[in-house]
Amino acid sequence: MEAARCTQTSAGPPPDEPTRRGAIPLTEDVRAYIERHRGEFVAGLKEWLAVPSISADPARADDVRRSAEWLAAHLTATGFPTVEIWPTGGASPGAQASGAPAVFAEWPAADPDAPTVLVYGHHDVQPVDPVELWDGDPFTPVERDGRIRARGASDDKGQVLFHTLGLRANLAASGAAAPPVTLRLLVEGEEESGSPNFGALLRTHRDRLACDVVVISDTTMWSADTPSMCVGMRGLTDCQIDVHGPEADLHSGSFGGAVPNPAHALAALLAGLHDSDGRVAVPGFYDDVVEVSSAERALIAKLPFDEAAWLRTAGSTAAAGEAGYSTLERVWVRPTAEVNGMWSGHTGAGPKTIVPRSAHAKVSFRLVPDQEPARVQALVREYVAGALPPGLRATVTFAGPGVRPCASDIGSAAVRAARDAMRRAFGTEVLFTREGGSGPEAEIADVLGAPLVFLAVGLDEDRIHAPNESVDVALLLKGAESAAHLWNELAAVLRPGGAAGSP
Amino acid sequence: MEAARCTQTSAGPPPDEPTRRGAIPLTEDVRAYIERHRGEFVAGLKEWLAVPSISADPARADDVRRSAEWLAAHLTATGFPTVEIWPTGGASPGAQASGAPAVFAEWPAADPDAPTVLVYGHHDVQPVDPVELWDGDPFTPVERDGRIRARGASDDKGQVLFHTLGLRANLAASGAAAPPVTLRLLVEGEEESGSPNFGALLRTHRDRLACDVVVISDTTMWSADTPSMCVGMRGLTDCQIDVHGPEADLHSGSFGGAVPNPAHALAALLAGLHDSDGRVAVPGFYDDVVEVSSAERALIAKLPFDEAAWLRTAGSTAAAGEAGYSTLERVWVRPTAEVNGMWSGHTGAGPKTIVPRSAHAKVSFRLVPDQEPARVQALVREYVAGALPPGLRATVTFAGPGVRPCASDIGSAAVRAARDAMRRAFGTEVLFTREGGSGPEAEIADVLGAPLVFLAVGLDEDRIHAPNESVDVALLLKGAESAAHLWNELAAVLRPGGAAGSP
Ligand SMILES: [Zn+2]
Ligand SMILES: [Zn+2]
Repeated sequence: MEAARCTQTSAGPPPDEPTRRGAIPLTEDVRAYIERHRGEFVAGLKEWLAVPSISADPARADDVRRSAEWLAAHLTATGFPTVEIWPTGGASPGAQASGAPAVFAEWPAADPDAPTVLVYGHHDVQPVDPVELWDGDPFTPVERDGRIRARGASDDKGQVLFHTLGLRANLAASGAAAPPVTLRLLVEGEEESGSPNFGALLRTHRDRLACDVVVISDTTMWSADTPSMCVGMRGLTDCQIDVHGPEADLHSGSFGGAVPNPAHALAALLAGLHDSDGRVAVPGFYDDVVEVSSAERALIAKLPFDEAAWLRTAGSTAAAGEAGYSTLERVWVRPTAEVNGMWSGHTGAGPKTIVPRSAHAKVSFRLVPDQEPARVQALVREYVAGALPPGLRATVTFAGPGVRPCASDIGSAAVRAARDAMRRAFGTEVLFTREGGSGPEAEIADVLGAPLVFLAVGLDEDRIHAPNESVDVALLLKGAESAAHLWNELAAVLRPGGAAGSP
Repeated sequence: MEAARCTQTSAGPPPDEPTRRGAIPLTEDVRAYIERHRGEFVAGLKEWLAVPSISADPARADDVRRSAEWLAAHLTATGFPTVEIWPTGGASPGAQASGAPAVFAEWPAADPDAPTVLVYGHHDVQPVDPVELWDGDPFTPVERDGRIRARGASDDKGQVLFHTLGLRANLAASGAAAPPVTLRLLVEGEEESGSPNFGALLRTHRDRLACDVVVISDTTMWSADTPSMCVGMRGLTDCQIDVHGPEADLHSGSFGGAVPNPAHALAALLAGLHDSDGRVAVPGFYDDVVEVSSAERALIAKLPFDEAAWLRTAGSTAAAGEAGYSTLERVWVRPTAEVNGMWSGHTGAGPKTIVPRSAHAKVSFRLVPDQEPARVQALVREYVAGALPPGLRATVTFAGPGVRPCASDIGSAAVRAARDAMRRAFGTEVLFTREGGSGPEAEIADVLGAPLVFLAVGLDEDRIHAPNESVDVALLLKGAESAAHLWNELAAVLRPGGAAGSP
């Protein structure tokens, strides 16, 4: 019954545009095509944004499915010969899938030796609470001053959709009937819920997702004036540390000063996580850290970073962290240990003179290449065991296997190709950024064994995950333009099954 | 209507006993008198114990008043020429006092140059919950196997009442009509509620309470086989430390490792409270600490301390504390810093990757002579201020002015006199102990400017503050015997207004 919604306003490969069959698209042809199709693109995006695909809300499961169906129909209309909706989370025939569906599409290159590229994005969106802080309904998209306001406009529907416009521009400008690479798309439906079924989905369809490079379109640029490419995301592992001492809280008058106090031991253990230079003092923690290259540091230093403004955003009156690194380096390329919470003994009003029987902390570790969460977990366990005085015992419980860090090799052919594609679209040098946290990206690279390249045009000011999310339409068109160039750039430098990650 | 309860079974100075008017009582005479009056003593104590004088329970206010009236009648019957019930907490004529009443009594010595002694105790008792853990009604005293079980039997009615038996024995054995010292008694009614009005009471009646020495009867001995005298109690001051960082919790992916984390700073600050030798590392903390004498250390070492049994009581598998001191020294004669509680950030289930905006701790300090709570508070404030990195701010809030430590000079004439009195009663060497915590004792010494001597016969096994509190009647009689000898011992060594505290 939602078939009507799936009627596309922008449909099929345009019959009127091919000019030079198979040629490398010219910058001006691509730009002209995209400018001409702005209206169609915006209309399609608004239609998709009207579907409230909130994966975290079980009541929206039907909407998430409708969102997948809209995208599938749009991809078919774009010309993808293969378009499939993949259930997740153990769906059986005839039953409602327990996970939200992903959309898969494939368009083989004409040349059987062409490389294969997988594009990743997601079609689910964040919840909209508090909805009263929005200037209008989050699922009634409004365009104003060149921006579309709606939940998902930037994260991530807008950034998924620029790919179809880019591909059509590529085909129109080259006159080819198929893309210069075999193009695969995987657009998941649970990213904003922590991608609980995504790893299984990747493993199930590993063969069909095989590729030479993964293009991720779900990040941000430095600013509209400073186009940039994300080249890494920190990994994560987090744990709870429980220190146990006497069987029960003890009266400090009778026992204080003569039995080990778990709160003292925990405080010492947490204080010992960092040395006086702000480095993580867990022995072995830096063993596998790949020092960021001087080339990347130089590019990071080129970014027009306003630390005072950043501190205002943080609500902090000072920056602090590992000695020898800038604030951006600290959040992007350096690993951390962070106490997220702690508790022990008496936490209510007034005094209570006890030796508490136990003390607890939540600690998370941000990881950078090539730190492995499993090894860091082992090091943390060793550290805690070695930090305990006699009479206390501790358990360390990790929340799960952790998230591996990921990074692109900035000297690789794939990154250079993507950077060139963006430079052609933006007409200016493209810098590098990283992100301090991460989603499922590292798992894609791990399971598929392919390097990651990030191509995205979101901005901090898009307010993703917040009220009044919006997106700059001109930047989405620049994203489409970049994507239009990217396939030929990649085809020129990649050999299938091979050296995408090498320079 | 409670007059019937106040009829005393033991009444008046016995007419049949004076033998040698004004002589020093002989050990055997005192003992024989006390043995003969055991039945009367026990009957009187049981009568008093039947009054449920729980000061912490507002519903028992009338019972606390009845308890004061019982004691006043008993003191009058003992022969005290002056007996008064003192309201506390701003009572006005005709109105119900808001605090629980104290009982004051005075019996002047015949010799106007005799010294004055003030005996301190309390007539209120602890609550009885959980009452179902008692073997019978807490206020229906039962004597079995030489012990009386009832709330208050040991803490403190039994130990107050042995004084009247002791005084009668003294007078009977000496044949005197008045005690050899001017004897004042102050028995408060709010000790188990933290003595909220006691300081004001002391100040109001400072002149009538003036004395050369204060005898405290509200502590314990090492064991029935090892009579001992408490010679000190640790003081206390406690605070809450609040460390504030960013305005709100921050996402650790975006900000972790680049802004100061209040939980890290608090952990470092708490860890820094102790050095690697377990000493308190707050600068200046030990400046005013009087090192315990080698004589007292030698006597402490004589106590038959079973550390394994003590650890079982503590429910701890190891002892720990300041290097160079034994467990008993650590809890009795050394000051401490103890984290009683702490909390910060996320304390619920699962991970939450934040930089918390604040971190908090409750910290208490046990103090020994001559540490002043006010000075320790200032040192702690300085320490916290100096331990904070830029970008964080902290407040330190003390719960109140704190409790000063107190101690008896073990070389003083008063302590020697009391020890001699106990040795005569017990027939063996009397050792020294201290207590790790304290009540209103230090304030008595401070306000009245008199040294403290502790004369008490409670035991750990009396289970004060717990279900089935009981007391060993034979020890109460030894307490009476000690008290009977104490007044002549003190009269022999004390000069009024003078050198009670000096050897
Ligand atoms: Zn996203
Ligand atoms: Zn008491």
